[in-house]
Amino acid sequence: MKLVLCKLLPKTTMSDFSAWAARIQARAESTLDALLPSENVAPQRLHAAMRYAILGGGKRVRPLLAHASGELFGASADKLDIAAAAVEMIHAYSLVHDDMPCMDDDDLRRGKPSCHKQFDDATALLVGDALQSLAFQALAQPGLCSNAGQQVHMIHLLAVASGSRGMAGGQAIDLASVGLNLSQQELEFMHIHKTGALIRVAVLLGAHCADAPDEKKLHAVDRYAKSIGLAFQVVDDILDAKADTATLGKTAGKDAKNNKPTYVTILGLAQAREFAAELHADAVASIAPFGSEGQRLTQLADFITERSF
Amino acid sequence: MKLVLCKLLPKTTMSDFSAWAARIQARAESTLDALLPSENVAPQRLHAAMRYAILGGGKRVRPLLAHASGELFGASADKLDIAAAAVEMIHAYSLVHDDMPCMDDDDLRRGKPSCHKQFDDATALLVGDALQSLAFQALAQPGLCSNAGQQVHMIHLLAVASGSRGMAGGQAIDLASVGLNLSQQELEFMHIHKTGALIRVAVLLGAHCADAPDEKKLHAVDRYAKSIGLAFQVVDDILDAKADTATLGKTAGKDAKNNKPTYVTILGLAQAREFAAELHADAVASIAPFGSEGQRLTQLADFITERSF
Repeated sequence: MKLVLCKLLPKTTMSDFSAWAARIQARAESTLDALLPSENVAPQRLHAAMRYAILGGGKRVRPLLAHASGELFGASADKLDIAAAAVEMIHAYSLVHDDMPCMDDDDLRRGKPSCHKQFDDATALLVGDALQSLAFQALAQPGLCSNAGQQVHMIHLLAVASGSRGMAGGQAIDLASVGLNLSQQELEFMHIHKTGALIRVAVLLGAHCADAPDEKKLHAVDRYAKSIGLAFQVVDDILDAKADTATLGKTAGKDAKNNKPTYVTILGLAQAREFAAELHADAVASIAPFGSEGQRLTQLADFITERSF
Repeated sequence: MKLVLCKLLPKTTMSDFSAWAARIQARAESTLDALLPSENVAPQRLHAAMRYAILGGGKRVRPLLAHASGELFGASADKLDIAAAAVEMIHAYSLVHDDMPCMDDDDLRRGKPSCHKQFDDATALLVGDALQSLAFQALAQPGLCSNAGQQVHMIHLLAVASGSRGMAGGQAIDLASVGLNLSQQELEFMHIHKTGALIRVAVLLGAHCADAPDEKKLHAVDRYAKSIGLAFQVVDDILDAKADTATLGKTAGKDAKNNKPTYVTILGLAQAREFAAELHADAVASIAPFGSEGQRLTQLADFITERSF
């Protein structure tokens, strides 16, 4: 995978991208910090746990995608911060619930004890619930969009992506697939929901932060988002099979341990890598017509497929 | 408590109210049925569990409140159906999560096995998560309000009422209060969040289903909602202490068993009843200026304080 990146990004572009990514990651952190209630506000323990679960860690891939997409459409950075934070809250809540004993039962997340280990199961349950509410609260904040109809549309997109026909549904399919021999098609169906839906909505919300997003561009970034969402999962499966726990910041090899089908178990490592490269190429091709305007999305496609930092 | 009701409602009014309530309950059921994905849609088991958790039971107090409030403001019944369903979805998700082993660990809900007993813990977790998303999806459906700004405001109200400063926060305070000797003031703070916030938002969303809700009326129904929200919890505590499991359809006496402070443990039964009557009187007084227009809200105040059916 290293090769893919080096081929596409000269060193100067890479360092430019890193600086941009670091800037967006810092914005994401400070936006989340501002949107989350302080630990001094009752109920203090819940707020402390919510902050623990979402601040100070994570690659912020979804905020990066929202900003990269928004830049292509000329959206304002302040509005993108809110949309990005809303998607990140949904993502963070799903990790908290996913780590719980009745789900994946994972003690480690982002190199720290997972939320239910640091606090307790009941608090973790409420952390997830309250982070989901806060995501919609953020996206429904008064005056976020000058066109309120567009704001309603954005909220609708996020709700669909999060629910039983999106992320939560993907989790349910994931649970049901333990120990089964899925076909590649069935695995794809699962991941389009479990991971893909939220990645896609990060890109779409970024676009809709512009006042009147161009339809042709919307169509292009949607294709980009679908490809990159799936690529993200394929790479995740490769990393889970290859990397160690320290590198991942979460328990490595847990898919195999949990007897879960992955792209590596179905396709083998080499073919899984090839598939990721194909998806990467499709994502990049879909935004190629927009030239340098789509630069950040192209770089992000590289970043996601590579994920070396 | 029976006396309160008989004094206020002559028999003919009572049967008129019962017919109205039955009509709204039927509308709530069919709206929820239409908004929830079919059991035949993937992921089938999750959708079956979501439907199990919300259909075919419950008093639908929050939809009744939304409709009663909406009628005072002249809102359309179709719009009220959606707002009512959204609130009911939040309520139902909270019950599913609240019954889980890491929370109240309750096997019985609405006279049936609770969701995690009928399905499993992981499915119940996802049912709650997906019902919350669906609530916001419903409220963000395109064209629900001719004024999209008002729709955004309604979504914001629901998110705040559901989150860490509302219902989920109240649950956290509830958990933290087990075994403590709370003052009446502390207990009130807990219930204003845990139960009150969602009851209040049912009333407010009902009002905001009207195109331009009158400010004076809004202020009045807000006071009504706060009083009746607290009354609801006081009566719940009384019922929990007095009724048997068969009558409640959920495990009776569980507050005492779980060593949770209640209005009955703090005030004693007689004083708790008196407090409920006071709150009822305040709720009724706040909408008295609107005469027969506020009839349904008055009747609902009686119904909630009485809850004999």
